[in-house]
Amino acid sequence: MSENTRWLNEVKWDEHGLVPVIAQEASSGDVLMFAWMNRDALQRTAESGEAVYWSRSRRKLWHKGEESGHVQKVVDIRIDCDNDVVLLKIEQVGGIACHTGRHSCFFQKYFADGHWQAIEPVLKDPQEIYK
Amino acid sequence: MSENTRWLNEVKWDEHGLVPVIAQEASSGDVLMFAWMNRDALQRTAESGEAVYWSRSRRKLWHKGEESGHVQKVVDIRIDCDNDVVLLKIEQVGGIACHTGRHSCFFQKYFADGHWQAIEPVLKDPQEIYK
Repeated sequence: MSENTRWLNEVKWDEHGLVPVIAQEASSGDVLMFAWMNRDALQRTAESGEAVYWSRSRRKLWHKGEESGHVQKVVDIRIDCDNDVVLLKIEQVGGIACHTGRHSCFFQKYFADGHWQAIEPVLKDPQEIYK
Repeated sequence: MSENTRWLNEVKWDEHGLVPVIAQEASSGDVLMFAWMNRDALQRTAESGEAVYWSRSRRKLWHKGEESGHVQKVVDIRIDCDNDVVLLKIEQVGGIACHTGRHSCFFQKYFADGHWQAIEPVLKDPQEIYK
């Protein structure tokens, strides 16, 4: 790990020591997923060049793609005007970010008659992805 | 307000009754900002066609652009696979989403030598925006 970690101190970590992270596909501009990072996750992401998140449900570091192979190669790391949200521009290996086997997690669209509907295709059966 | 609000019940509101929201410019794909909505804000956003957020600092509804005129016209409302994050595709009136007068709030880039640097231009002096 690098000794220059002042940039990590500039992030406004929330009361749980986390920051929200938006993962955007650099080539298409598609927003693929939303997750959280702690300080260690952000440092590892920057140093390894692959997205590492903090899994709030499993309470541990989560190297995205560690099971599926669908890792995210970091292209750009941005932070917002308040230093409390990270935008990660990535290239999505395998083209699938969602655990449902879809390109993006944001596949449910609101229709004005008052319902959500899945409108994006499943590219690969999750049972094939997580063997 | 519409009586069909079942779709609002399907959102997994957090312990504060909020959901994180990513605002993405529909035409460019640029991620412009990140904010929060409560149930009322999401309903108003859907019904009015303009983004209404919940300001956590001011603890009140915040019709984006109410002061600046930089309202966000809703093009599409998406929700993620876990029903706990909203992606709002919008058109940004005035082309400025950030209170610093920039197009996007994500104007600070991480450089590998370990620092953040603002790399996007201020399009309009904030003192001109918020008179």
